[in-house]
Amino acid sequence: MKIGFIGLGHMGAPMARNLLKAGHQLVVYDIVKDAVEKIAAAGAVAAASPSAVAASSVEMLITMLPSSPHVRSVYLGQHSILAGAKPGTLLIDCSTIDPHTARDVAFDAKAKGLSMLDAPVSGGTGGAEAGTLTFMVGGEPRDFETARPVLARMGKNIVHCGAAGNGQVAKLANNMLLAISMIGVAEAMSLGVALGIDAKVLAGIINTSSGRCWSSDTYNPYPGVMDNVPASRDYIGGFGANLMLKDLGLATDAAKLAGQPVVLGAAAQQMYQMFSNQGHGNMDFSAIIKLFKPK
Amino acid sequence: MKIGFIGLGHMGAPMARNLLKAGHQLVVYDIVKDAVEKIAAAGAVAAASPSAVAASSVEMLITMLPSSPHVRSVYLGQHSILAGAKPGTLLIDCSTIDPHTARDVAFDAKAKGLSMLDAPVSGGTGGAEAGTLTFMVGGEPRDFETARPVLARMGKNIVHCGAAGNGQVAKLANNMLLAISMIGVAEAMSLGVALGIDAKVLAGIINTSSGRCWSSDTYNPYPGVMDNVPASRDYIGGFGANLMLKDLGLATDAAKLAGQPVVLGAAAQQMYQMFSNQGHGNMDFSAIIKLFKPK
Amino acid sequence: MKIGFIGLGHMGAPMARNLLKAGHQLVVYDIVKDAVEKIAAAGAVAAASPSAVAASSVEMLITMLPSSPHVRSVYLGQHSILAGAKPGTLLIDCSTIDPHTARDVAFDAKAKGLSMLDAPVSGGTGGAEAGTLTFMVGGEPRDFETARPVLARMGKNIVHCGAAGNGQVAKLANNMLLAISMIGVAEAMSLGVALGIDAKVLAGIINTSSGRCWSSDTYNPYPGVMDNVPASRDYIGGFGANLMLKDLGLATDAAKLAGQPVVLGAAAQQMYQMFSNQGHGNMDFSAIIKLFKPK
Amino acid sequence: MKIGFIGLGHMGAPMARNLLKAGHQLVVYDIVKDAVEKIAAAGAVAAASPSAVAASSVEMLITMLPSSPHVRSVYLGQHSILAGAKPGTLLIDCSTIDPHTARDVAFDAKAKGLSMLDAPVSGGTGGAEAGTLTFMVGGEPRDFETARPVLARMGKNIVHCGAAGNGQVAKLANNMLLAISMIGVAEAMSLGVALGIDAKVLAGIINTSSGRCWSSDTYNPYPGVMDNVPASRDYIGGFGANLMLKDLGLATDAAKLAGQPVVLGAAAQQMYQMFSNQGHGNMDFSAIIKLFKPK
Repeated sequence: MKIGFIGLGHMGAPMARNLLKAGHQLVVYDIVKDAVEKIAAAGAVAAASPSAVAASSVEMLITMLPSSPHVRSVYLGQHSILAGAKPGTLLIDCSTIDPHTARDVAFDAKAKGLSMLDAPVSGGTGGAEAGTLTFMVGGEPRDFETARPVLARMGKNIVHCGAAGNGQVAKLANNMLLAISMIGVAEAMSLGVALGIDAKVLAGIINTSSGRCWSSDTYNPYPGVMDNVPASRDYIGGFGANLMLKDLGLATDAAKLAGQPVVLGAAAQQMYQMFSNQGHGNMDFSAIIKLFKPK
Repeated sequence: MKIGFIGLGHMGAPMARNLLKAGHQLVVYDIVKDAVEKIAAAGAVAAASPSAVAASSVEMLITMLPSSPHVRSVYLGQHSILAGAKPGTLLIDCSTIDPHTARDVAFDAKAKGLSMLDAPVSGGTGGAEAGTLTFMVGGEPRDFETARPVLARMGKNIVHCGAAGNGQVAKLANNMLLAISMIGVAEAMSLGVALGIDAKVLAGIINTSSGRCWSSDTYNPYPGVMDNVPASRDYIGGFGANLMLKDLGLATDAAKLAGQPVVLGAAAQQMYQMFSNQGHGNMDFSAIIKLFKPK
Repeated sequence: MKIGFIGLGHMGAPMARNLLKAGHQLVVYDIVKDAVEKIAAAGAVAAASPSAVAASSVEMLITMLPSSPHVRSVYLGQHSILAGAKPGTLLIDCSTIDPHTARDVAFDAKAKGLSMLDAPVSGGTGGAEAGTLTFMVGGEPRDFETARPVLARMGKNIVHCGAAGNGQVAKLANNMLLAISMIGVAEAMSLGVALGIDAKVLAGIINTSSGRCWSSDTYNPYPGVMDNVPASRDYIGGFGANLMLKDLGLATDAAKLAGQPVVLGAAAQQMYQMFSNQGHGNMDFSAIIKLFKPK
Repeated sequence: MKIGFIGLGHMGAPMARNLLKAGHQLVVYDIVKDAVEKIAAAGAVAAASPSAVAASSVEMLITMLPSSPHVRSVYLGQHSILAGAKPGTLLIDCSTIDPHTARDVAFDAKAKGLSMLDAPVSGGTGGAEAGTLTFMVGGEPRDFETARPVLARMGKNIVHCGAAGNGQVAKLANNMLLAISMIGVAEAMSLGVALGIDAKVLAGIINTSSGRCWSSDTYNPYPGVMDNVPASRDYIGGFGANLMLKDLGLATDAAKLAGQPVVLGAAAQQMYQMFSNQGHGNMDFSAIIKLFKPK
C-alpha cells in the first residue's frame, strides 16, 4: 500500500522503517532534512511539504509529531495535509496531544470528506524499533478496521477506544495513573526501607498484595529490586521524566477544561516539574524516587 | 495445641473459631463479656485477664486488638500478658499498629525471655471467616517457622518480612500504596469518562497497560465496570474508608518519625479524612471516587 | 474625552457608567443588546461591532471581557478592534486573562501602530460600582501615564507593573497567593477550634503574629469572627468561588508554560474545583472553609 | 521573686538571664553542666534535679524543653517537678509541644494541687535575647494574671488563649498558617518573576493587595526584595527550616487526633521534610523558596 508518513523523529523513524520492511511504499516529510535523507536511503520517497505528501495518491497518511501546535499546523496550516489530501484518504495521527485538538482536527478533516483516527502509542523508542507498540485508537469503527493491519506492522496491541479523541483520552488517563502509581511505589518503597525492611522482600509482598501495580512488579523504581529496568542502570534510557511531565501537563489541562478534580494527578505533575527543574528531566521517569531520598 | 487468644472482635472471633475447628484448645479473653461467651459456647475456655490467659500453660498466645495503646496496655500494663507469661511462650500480635510500638513490646518481651512476632493481616472479615487471610510477619525465623502451621489455619498466605516490626512496616507500606492507587484509579476513571470514553473500555485499556493495578483490575471503584466489587453494590461491605484512614494515619506517623517524605501518601490521608468527615467513613474505601464527581 | 468601551457585563457596566459620570463621551458595544440599551439610556452611543467602536474616532478604547478566547476574538477576529482602529488609539484591556494572550494581542496591536495596556482589576462588582477598583497595568510607561487619569475615574489604586502582560502576571500571582492564604486560614481556624480554642481569640492571636494575612485580618472565613464579611452572611456576595477557580486555572496554566512548580497553588486549584463540583461555586470564595468541617 | 528555671538551651538561657537582670532569684537545672555553670556565673543557684528545683521554695517554676517526651519526663518521671513541688507553686511550661501532652501534664499537676500554664513563645533567639518574645498562654485566668508580670520581663506580647493547652493550640495553628503562607509567597514570587515581572514591583503590589501577609511584607523570601531578612543574607539565622518542620509535625499530629483535614498543612509538612532531607534544614525557613527554582 502507498502510505504517507510525516514526522521522522526518535519514534517516527523506526515506525516508518517497519512499514518499509513490511513492503509498503512510503512518501515522507520532515522539517529536518537529515531525517528525511536517512529514510529515503532505506527506500522512501521524499516530498516537499505535508500537502505534497497528502497529494501524492497515498491511501493512508500517518503523522507522528511533538505537540498540539505542531499537529494544528501540519494538518490545518499553510501547505498542510488538509490543503492537499484527496477525499477517501485515511488520516492517522499518532502524536500524543490533548483530546480537544484531536477532535478539532478530526472535525475539520471530516468537513473535507476525510476520515481521521487519533492513535497515540505507548512503548517508547524500544517498542517503536521492535514493532511492539500499543496503539490507542479513537475514531469510526470502519476506519479502525482499515487501519488495523497497517498499525499491526508497528505494534502488537491495537485497541479501539471509541469515537474521535478517545485514543488521546485513554492515553492521558492511563499515563496520569501511571505517574501516580510510580510516585506511590517510590514513596512506599522508600518508607519501608527507611523503617527497616529489605527492598526485595517489600517488593515481593506488595506484588502479591493489594498494592500490586505495573510500577511495582514490572518497572520497580528502587535500585536493586529488579534487573533490566532503568533503576538497575542509573535510570538511563526508558521513558524520560520530561515526557511524563508533558503527559501530566496534557492530563491536567484536559481535567481543567472538563471541570474535573485530579488531586493526586496535579500533585504528580508538580513533583515531576520540580524534579525536572532540579536537572533530572532526561532520566527515566522512575528516577522520581530521588525526591524521596532519606535524610 | 493449647493456644491463648485475646481480642474477639469482628476479626478476632472468626480467627479464633477457625483455630477451634482445627482442633486446637483455646483459652480466651476480651473485655466484652458477650464476645467471650459466644466463643466459649463453641468450646473455648474463658480466662479473667490477659495475664490469666498467659499463665494458663498456653504454648502460643495470639492477640488481635484495635490500636497501639490497646497493645501496650494488654502486653505491658497491669494484669498484662508479660505479667503472666512463662518463658518459652510464643507471643503473636495480629493487630495493625505502628512499627515502633511493635518493636518496643517485642523488646520488652525478649527481656522477659519471651519470643514475639508481629503478624498483621489483610483480607478483612471475609478472609477471617474463610480462613484466607494474608499474614505479614516480623520476628525471628525460628519463631516464624513455629507459628506458620497455626497461622495457616487462619490464612493462606503467610509471609516472613524480616525482624520484629517488619510485619507492620510491610502492611502500612502496602496499604499506603493501595490508597494512592485507589485514588489514582478514581481520578483517572472519572477524568476519562468526563472526557467521553466508556468506563469499561477505559478500564480494559488501563488493565493491559502501564496503569494496571489491583485497584483497577480487581477492585475497580467505577460503578458498573466490575461485578462483585463494592462499587457494584453502593460501596457496602469491603474494607471501610475509616479503616483505610487509620492505616494512612499509621503510615504518615511512621514516615514522620523516620523523617521520610510521603507527598502522595499525606495527600491520600487528607482525602480520606475529608471523605470521612463528609459522613462516608463506613463505606468501602473505593467509595473515595465520590470526591471526584463531575460538576 | 471620547472613549470606546466594549464588554458591559457585571463589571463593565458600572465601570462605563463611572466614565459617563466623569463627563466622558462613550461609544459602546456588547453582544447582549439589553446591556447596550441600558448604558445608551445613560448617554452612551451604541456601535454595531468592535471594529465600528474602534473606527469612531475614539482616543482610548477599553475592553472588559470574560476570558482569553473572547479577547482574541474581539481584538483579532472578524470585525475586530484591530480591523477598525486608527494609529494612535490607546487600547486598554481590563479582562483577567493569561499573560501569553495579553502579550500576543499587544504584539499584534503594536504591529499596526497601536499602543496597548493590559489592566486587570481587583475589587469586584462593589469596587466597580464605587469606583474604587485596583488596576494592575502592564505596558509602556508613557501609555500608562496617558491612561492613568481615565482609570482613576474607575479605581483608586492604579499600579504600573512593567511591560506588556505584567498586569496579568501581577494579578494571577496575587490571586494564587490569596487562594492559598484563604485555604490556609480556613484550615488553621478549623483546626484551632476543633482543638478547643475560641475562634475570635485565635483570630486575634494570628492577626498580631506571623500568620497574619488579608484572609485572616480583613476577610476571615470563620463565621462570627468578623462583621461585614461574607462569612457573616452565609457567604453570599463577595468574590465567587468559581471566579477564584478561573484565576487559579490561569495561574496554573501560566506556571505550566513557564515550567514553574506551584505545589500549593495546584492543590488550591484542585480544592476549588472539588468545592465547585459539590455545588458551591456561586458562594464567596471564603466558603472553601466548608471543605474543612469537623467530623 | 524566687523562680525555678529548667532548660537552659538557646532559648532558655537568654530568657533566664533576663529574669536575673530584672532582679529575680533563680534556681536552675539543665542536663548540660556547662549551660548551668554559665548561668550560675551570672548569679543563679544550681540544683541537682528538676525535683530539687521544685523543692527549693520557688513561687514559680518555668521550663523550656525541646519536645513532648522531655516535658513528660521532667514533669512526671523520676526526680521530676511533680515529685518535688509544693502546693501553690505556679508551673509554666514554655516548650512548644502537642496540646494533648500539655493538657495531660496540667491535669496531673492539678491533681497534686499545683497550677500550671502552657506558654509557648514565638520570636526566636533574637526575641529571647532582646526580651521581646510573644507568649501564647493557656490556663486559668487567675494564674495568667499572676504570671504576666514575670513573663513581661522576657517578652512584650503576653496573650491569654483560654484553658490549658490553648497556648499550644494557638502556636501550632499560627505556625501551620505561617508555613503555608511562606510557601505561597515563595510560589507566587517565583512564578511572577519567571513570567517577567520585577520581584520588588510584584512584592509591592501583593503587599497592598489581597495577597498581603507577614511572609510577603515583613519576611519576604525572594532575595533582594527586602533588607535585613534572611533572604538578604543567604538564609542564615532566623527560624530554622527544621524547627518549622517540627511545628508542622505537631500541627498535623494534632489534626489527625482531632480528625480534622489540613490539606495544605500536610502538603507544607511534606515540602519541609523534602527540603530538610536535601540538606537545608539549618537554613532559615524562608529558604523553602529554593524548591521552586526555575528550570
